[in-house]
Amino acid sequence: MEYKAPEQDIAFLLNDVFDVQKEWSDIPAFADFTDDLLAAVVSEGGRVASGVLAPINQSGDAQGCTWNDGEVRTPEGFPQAFAEFVGGGWLGLSGNPEYGGQGMPKMLGCLIEEMFWAANPSFYLYGTLTVGAALCIDSHGTAEQKGMYLPRLYSGEWTGAMGLTESHAGTDLGLIRTKAEPNADGSYAISGTKIFITSGEHDLAENIVHLVLAKLPDAPGGSRGISLFIVPKFLPDADGNPGARNAVASGSLEHKMGIRASATNVMNFDGATGWLLGEPNQGLACMFTMMNYERLSVGLQGLGAGEMAYQLGAAYARDRLQGRAPAGPQNADGPADSLLVHPDVRRMLLTARAYSEGGRAFAMFAGLQLDRGKYANDPTAQAFSELLTPVAKAFMSDRGFESAVAAQQVFGGHGYIQEWGAEQVVRDTRIAQIYEGTNGVQAMDLIGRKVLRDGGRTLEDLVAHMRGVAVSDAYAAPLEAAFERLLESTRSVVRRSQEDANLPGAVATDYLDLVGHTVYAWLWGRMASAPTASDAKQATARFYFDRLLPRTLGLAASIEAAAAAVSDFPEEAF
Amino acid sequence: MEYKAPEQDIAFLLNDVFDVQKEWSDIPAFADFTDDLLAAVVSEGGRVASGVLAPINQSGDAQGCTWNDGEVRTPEGFPQAFAEFVGGGWLGLSGNPEYGGQGMPKMLGCLIEEMFWAANPSFYLYGTLTVGAALCIDSHGTAEQKGMYLPRLYSGEWTGAMGLTESHAGTDLGLIRTKAEPNADGSYAISGTKIFITSGEHDLAENIVHLVLAKLPDAPGGSRGISLFIVPKFLPDADGNPGARNAVASGSLEHKMGIRASATNVMNFDGATGWLLGEPNQGLACMFTMMNYERLSVGLQGLGAGEMAYQLGAAYARDRLQGRAPAGPQNADGPADSLLVHPDVRRMLLTARAYSEGGRAFAMFAGLQLDRGKYANDPTAQAFSELLTPVAKAFMSDRGFESAVAAQQVFGGHGYIQEWGAEQVVRDTRIAQIYEGTNGVQAMDLIGRKVLRDGGRTLEDLVAHMRGVAVSDAYAAPLEAAFERLLESTRSVVRRSQEDANLPGAVATDYLDLVGHTVYAWLWGRMASAPTASDAKQATARFYFDRLLPRTLGLAASIEAAAAAVSDFPEEAF
Repeated sequence: MEYKAPEQDIAFLLNDVFDVQKEWSDIPAFADFTDDLLAAVVSEGGRVASGVLAPINQSGDAQGCTWNDGEVRTPEGFPQAFAEFVGGGWLGLSGNPEYGGQGMPKMLGCLIEEMFWAANPSFYLYGTLTVGAALCIDSHGTAEQKGMYLPRLYSGEWTGAMGLTESHAGTDLGLIRTKAEPNADGSYAISGTKIFITSGEHDLAENIVHLVLAKLPDAPGGSRGISLFIVPKFLPDADGNPGARNAVASGSLEHKMGIRASATNVMNFDGATGWLLGEPNQGLACMFTMMNYERLSVGLQGLGAGEMAYQLGAAYARDRLQGRAPAGPQNADGPADSLLVHPDVRRMLLTARAYSEGGRAFAMFAGLQLDRGKYANDPTAQAFSELLTPVAKAFMSDRGFESAVAAQQVFGGHGYIQEWGAEQVVRDTRIAQIYEGTNGVQAMDLIGRKVLRDGGRTLEDLVAHMRGVAVSDAYAAPLEAAFERLLESTRSVVRRSQEDANLPGAVATDYLDLVGHTVYAWLWGRMASAPTASDAKQATARFYFDRLLPRTLGLAASIEAAAAAVSDFPEEAF
Repeated sequence: MEYKAPEQDIAFLLNDVFDVQKEWSDIPAFADFTDDLLAAVVSEGGRVASGVLAPINQSGDAQGCTWNDGEVRTPEGFPQAFAEFVGGGWLGLSGNPEYGGQGMPKMLGCLIEEMFWAANPSFYLYGTLTVGAALCIDSHGTAEQKGMYLPRLYSGEWTGAMGLTESHAGTDLGLIRTKAEPNADGSYAISGTKIFITSGEHDLAENIVHLVLAKLPDAPGGSRGISLFIVPKFLPDADGNPGARNAVASGSLEHKMGIRASATNVMNFDGATGWLLGEPNQGLACMFTMMNYERLSVGLQGLGAGEMAYQLGAAYARDRLQGRAPAGPQNADGPADSLLVHPDVRRMLLTARAYSEGGRAFAMFAGLQLDRGKYANDPTAQAFSELLTPVAKAFMSDRGFESAVAAQQVFGGHGYIQEWGAEQVVRDTRIAQIYEGTNGVQAMDLIGRKVLRDGGRTLEDLVAHMRGVAVSDAYAAPLEAAFERLLESTRSVVRRSQEDANLPGAVATDYLDLVGHTVYAWLWGRMASAPTASDAKQATARFYFDRLLPRTLGLAASIEAAAAAVSDFPEEAF
């Protein structure tokens, strides 16, 4: 699959939409990150995505990973590409400079990650879990743990994995059974079986660092009794080199709908040696550091997939001659016009394009909030980033899947045939709506923890922030109507939730969808209002406002329904 | 995959919603089809679907078909199951009694077909193409052709295939290059290559009857120069037994996203002997007899898939204990409550259920119109059936895919794992939106041929017909609002299409979606108004009106956008 990095669109966002240098004016750590430097990193990231990752995306899907007696082999070309990839320092891009990271802004990381996801999601999974594990250790580890693990994770010599799910415990982690028994030397013996462990075993790195949730003896029941442990595949020796093999092994690989070049393992921990990361019984909170990173990253997977799907669909539509334009032939000398003359084909491509370009702006906005929260101690930005994380994960992955399906549809019958690539994007993207907390869980997080908990204040602040940015007259009125619709729905949900415990869950998904569509509308208004916005950008903005934003009318009406619409159905009749 | 035939729901529709005996009172051919007989056929069809087809659905996907030097082998168990299946006479259910068919109503066929599709879509593809080919020969063949082919197709000794698509010609069949040269004996020599030929070669029957589009020498250009030919794999001898092998062979099998147990062939015709079916240069019109049958059938594929997905998701949700109900534990003695307590899980299941049960009623309604059009010469019913065919194909397959994705989501991570079955339903159903004319093509057919051509009159008649059925007070007002919304959109589209050639295509998909949601609302109103409607039925109706019908607000607003929203985007910028 050919992939073209969206460098031009990124430059537009960096130079003409967001004034990043101004946003960073109170962040000394970012003083050296000039526009030129950012552009150079984007350009190099794009080169790696197109030149190293994309060429092994389709072959990786066809071959998949193979399991043999606990050893996992990745598809042809993956080890070489991984070596080249980590050699570029990409896993340490936003890492802690004290331990070999480059300390780059999250906002830049979002732009880069999108490209890696787009070019080869199975491949980048080996990367994103490593970055997330490093972030978790950086946030909760001892100086010794940081010194041991961070440089090796940033360099990709070692990779990371997260061990949460057990066969009977997915969303409800309070049910896990994996045990951690204290050893005499301060370490723990970890025993249990974890499933769905991405990159739990593979042949790309000399060591694998598992972050594993387990229960200490006499831990409180449920989610308050969970602790987090570092469990390396090989125990580091005194020099930090991989030493004795730990008692952790892959029991098998899962057979999946997609991301087949990503090794998804059942992992058996049989008294494996592990070390506590963070405080006892605080494991879930620690793990959330990693999960919040991964949630945004998985949103970027959806974003990248939408862009990749758009590129495939647009290329096919350009080349494919079929039928004639409604108002008469455009390619009169040829046997037929290109698919691009057909309004319904344009509708599908513009849907993918509007969600991809809107999503890219959204990812930058979310990244900026994370940067300001972390480096400028900006509490509003911090609150925005917490509100936006579940939206980023769920809305970007939902729109990515929708875009992938739309682009596949452009291909007609060829969209269903493996050789053409479009169906792989659909299969690979579907998981983004499921893992790292299903999109329903994200919607519950948004409505419960991020909106109801503060009575909707952060959401109101976000709308006030959005209202504070001027947009051109063409979009001011529909945007204001969208803001008002979102505020009314929010206030209604806050009010009605006090009377009906089922209400938040009943409307959560529609509400998240409403928030996402509204914030994207704001970003489309901003983009279209930039003096340098191209004709294509203006036309896509118009498409978004005319054809996609109206979905919020239905969402707002659906949110007004009582919880009884879902809770009245008799349980035994399902 | 276990499949339970929806016999109870079908009985409700047959006995309490539609008064079929009254609808048939002027159809003497149906006089013998008592309610008891209909119920017996449904029951036996359900038994075959659950007991014969469903057990080999998952294994068929895992094994797929294999190609060896032009021979195609179907998965294990398929030949035996096919023999049992055709032995039951199912392929002749609605066939012409003069030639061994059973002459049963199309409405009944719709109910039966849904179950076959649900239980094993790959398997039933071998059936539906046979039924469609028989219908085409019955409509356009000579007495000799009918006598030769119909009994053998109805019995399943021979199967059917349709050869339309070529690698450069899919939707635009005017571009085909396959040639038909007259032979001295009145037959023709067919030469060319067809792709995507479902059941083009396989090991289930002793002969395969290809209906092939080709061009006669000196035929007019484009779609007016296409003729239809019967090209059997083995030339029938004087006794009608398969004789000499014809010059038609499978060049390869396609590698597909799903329906992997269905053999999708590249077929090479190398001077193969064929006989004209229907008049010269009228091939496309003749083929449409088959295509219209297949379009409704593919809609039923979507309907069956939605039901199958719902059953899988509901069973998983019932068994899976995870988390607690919002208002407090429901299963306090257990480790957690079932997924069914979570409002968002209910939302997903009820979405699938509302579209499946609504779709079943829709299919019955469409089938009744076809029956009245064909057997009672009812011109209104005939016009309704033509209007409803593209809606049936596209809306039922779109909703089937949506339902499959929703049910997969209920499974969380297990939804992505092949062993659990949910992901297969998603992959298998995706093709229903693509083949037999993409859903975009259906939308163009609806808006162009079925609405604009008569200035919206048939659509207005349909609304008048729907208004003529009384529904209970709870649904009367929202239903009337939905009718009014549909009429306004229709009039607006009719008016604006006169001024902008791009308008119909620009809004076609949203318009079809609007029609589908409105007709389903009417059917939900009817079902909920039946005195025997269960609590579950009432609650699902409420869910439909409260949570799904509101989508029409967004659709109507989107339809109001000018075509410029899609046509302004500069072609070179895609």
